[in-house]
Amino acid sequence: MSEPLRIALAGLGTVGGGVIRLIETNAEIIARRAGRPIVITAVSARNRGKDRGVDLSGYHWEDDMVILGERPDVDVVVELVGGADGPALALARTTFEAGKALVTANKAMIAHHGIELATRAEAAKAALKFEAAVAGGIPVIKGLKEGAAANAIQRVYGILNGTCNYILSTMEDTGRDFADVLAEAQAKGYAEADPTFDIDGIDAAHKLSILASVAFGTATDFQSVIATGIRRVLAADIAQADALGYYIRLIGMAETDVDAHGNRRLFQRVHPHLVHRDHPLAHVDGATNAVVVEGNFAGPLLFQGAGAGDGPTASAVVADLIDIARGDIGAPFSIPVAELDPATPAASGHRSGRAYLRFTVADRPGVLAEITAAMRDAGVSIESMIQKGRGVAGDAPGAGQVLVAMVTHEGPESGIAEALRLLEGSPSLAEAPLVMHILGE
Amino acid sequence: MSEPLRIALAGLGTVGGGVIRLIETNAEIIARRAGRPIVITAVSARNRGKDRGVDLSGYHWEDDMVILGERPDVDVVVELVGGADGPALALARTTFEAGKALVTANKAMIAHHGIELATRAEAAKAALKFEAAVAGGIPVIKGLKEGAAANAIQRVYGILNGTCNYILSTMEDTGRDFADVLAEAQAKGYAEADPTFDIDGIDAAHKLSILASVAFGTATDFQSVIATGIRRVLAADIAQADALGYYIRLIGMAETDVDAHGNRRLFQRVHPHLVHRDHPLAHVDGATNAVVVEGNFAGPLLFQGAGAGDGPTASAVVADLIDIARGDIGAPFSIPVAELDPATPAASGHRSGRAYLRFTVADRPGVLAEITAAMRDAGVSIESMIQKGRGVAGDAPGAGQVLVAMVTHEGPESGIAEALRLLEGSPSLAEAPLVMHILGE
Repeated sequence: MSEPLRIALAGLGTVGGGVIRLIETNAEIIARRAGRPIVITAVSARNRGKDRGVDLSGYHWEDDMVILGERPDVDVVVELVGGADGPALALARTTFEAGKALVTANKAMIAHHGIELATRAEAAKAALKFEAAVAGGIPVIKGLKEGAAANAIQRVYGILNGTCNYILSTMEDTGRDFADVLAEAQAKGYAEADPTFDIDGIDAAHKLSILASVAFGTATDFQSVIATGIRRVLAADIAQADALGYYIRLIGMAETDVDAHGNRRLFQRVHPHLVHRDHPLAHVDGATNAVVVEGNFAGPLLFQGAGAGDGPTASAVVADLIDIARGDIGAPFSIPVAELDPATPAASGHRSGRAYLRFTVADRPGVLAEITAAMRDAGVSIESMIQKGRGVAGDAPGAGQVLVAMVTHEGPESGIAEALRLLEGSPSLAEAPLVMHILGE
Repeated sequence: MSEPLRIALAGLGTVGGGVIRLIETNAEIIARRAGRPIVITAVSARNRGKDRGVDLSGYHWEDDMVILGERPDVDVVVELVGGADGPALALARTTFEAGKALVTANKAMIAHHGIELATRAEAAKAALKFEAAVAGGIPVIKGLKEGAAANAIQRVYGILNGTCNYILSTMEDTGRDFADVLAEAQAKGYAEADPTFDIDGIDAAHKLSILASVAFGTATDFQSVIATGIRRVLAADIAQADALGYYIRLIGMAETDVDAHGNRRLFQRVHPHLVHRDHPLAHVDGATNAVVVEGNFAGPLLFQGAGAGDGPTASAVVADLIDIARGDIGAPFSIPVAELDPATPAASGHRSGRAYLRFTVADRPGVLAEITAAMRDAGVSIESMIQKGRGVAGDAPGAGQVLVAMVTHEGPESGIAEALRLLEGSPSLAEAPLVMHILGE
């Protein structure tokens, strides 16, 4: 058997522990599939003294993680520190300077600095792999780069944040409110003490910008992702969607088109959507992730599995290591960095679709007429409307307020934006309306 | 840009036409992702004169397809002729003799001769790839060989035959009988004039034996797949399953265990199953395929998409070609042939689970007592039972007959076999009972 592939592990949290356990438990299978053993030689983390429940005595401890890649007994650095910048980024840079390969689960770093790092990796003729950065254990980066490689990708979308999906599907099952379910998720460790990155859609936006780059051959453009989270989704919205045959899911979606001047545009949005109950994503519950890749020959391909957790994430990290052990360097974003297209970010106005709108309004005559007049003036056609007074299950509106929910016919998204602009500042509205798009076929 | 990868195409049916269209339509994307163009240089099929609606004038026509691999202007042969033996097998052999790579969509040939061909490919240091042979456009072979490579696979199972799934889901939606829906599927071209391979589970068994080999590192063993098709599923069974919260799906499943002597056993079965409506496979409708791969670290991974058709199959064929263009030869079954384990075929008796049994019986007193006595004597515990007389919707039993359907508690499958043995030849039974297993978690 060939020489082992020697790795250094930076970051010994949950995922780092999972990688150690996996490499030890499945050593024989890995060696057979990779054609050579994969062994850990060195490890590093912020705090040496911490008890992690893993035996680290067989590995060299390096106090300064940034120089792990410079060690002569290391072929690949596995970065599991996290954070877009700081030690993770410094480590990535020194690793490529040393001509070594990097495997990372760090979605923030790849979303922000992926192009720089891919450029460094190419210059070093070293691999940069990040399967674990998107959708945990699901091999969707590989699915896009290789499985669907023969296709022009028309759209990529999916459920990319397990915390949000857990909260939404629990609200659905129990009829409970967002704040209540979030607090429970935090108590159980399913949500962070500061849940902002998850519930405001930032984590999903990181992942989406990586998926889009690999799918479309465009440069990663995290800044242009239009992201809305799930904070404002009410139990009443979920009940209303259910009555119409839909489930609410936080969907990250990216697609490209060509504008009037023949320039390619990239549209990226993370947004709570109404998903029809016949759609496979409607049945993705709990912390599961799922991604649909639409190819011009393959049609829609669905990849589904655990989106987080030490085992699944470790599975993706070690899959990347096995690829490297087999000699697969590959282009980090599927094609060489110089060929990545700096696509123009697209606004949402050019898109067409159906939408769900929910208004919290003063309970007095004339309010409905005001809203429907704004819709008419903006050219938005209403398919159905329901008004719910106080006393509805779950999060009732405040005293003297009612909820008005409506679903629009297919039409330009710009019309809805215009209707909301017309209603802006109206004393009839107790708060800004909530818009959720309906996931199209 | 590097030299093009030159391919020869044997077989110009629907899929062959799809491959030509795909390579022409997506030429630029393919070249960027593969790092070099992929071009067709030569083609061959049984009948040169046939009008196929594709322009073949740019390609050299070879009358004798078996010698395609010997042409100096060919790097890879794509075999789309079909059939386990005959010209397809002869072509595969001469291709490896010539030291060239082979890409094939031929599940029968790989199920029957995959080990021989992998041995020849290894000797020639040439690639043998067959992503298109299993589940059409879904990259599940790659998912197993690479995406889930870090895992010990515990079980692989799924919906592997689109024709059966189309028939079952149409029966479900319409309440119509099997024969009626089959006839319609044949008229629409969804089922072959001779549908035996599909509806008796042989096609799914071919695919399952390939999946099992890649998943478990065992030698392909098509002969040991226990296959039952869907001919005997009645509309009444579907209605009964629905009432219990289940859908009926033809599931191919493979798993390994270790027997009392420490020997590894491989269990492979294609069988109609009751799938609980909370399971993702319950919502796979029409001709869609879906495969679940259970890894010891990744947990369950679902791969879903179009299981057949020219576009999806061509997508899988060209994905293999892109891998080869990138220099990925790989082991056809994930590990070298010499290391494949000739696992002992396992019978089903050692397995435990719940099952659905349906008896067509004479409508007279004492029959139920006879059946339940046999179950008791075999140690099978009945969870629920329902008896349906004539006049039920759909396929009513014959005059003087009734249907008795029951669901068992969890127990050894050997018990059910024993109960059926005790009832064998009983004049109370109008036909052999139908057993369907309930898909476990």
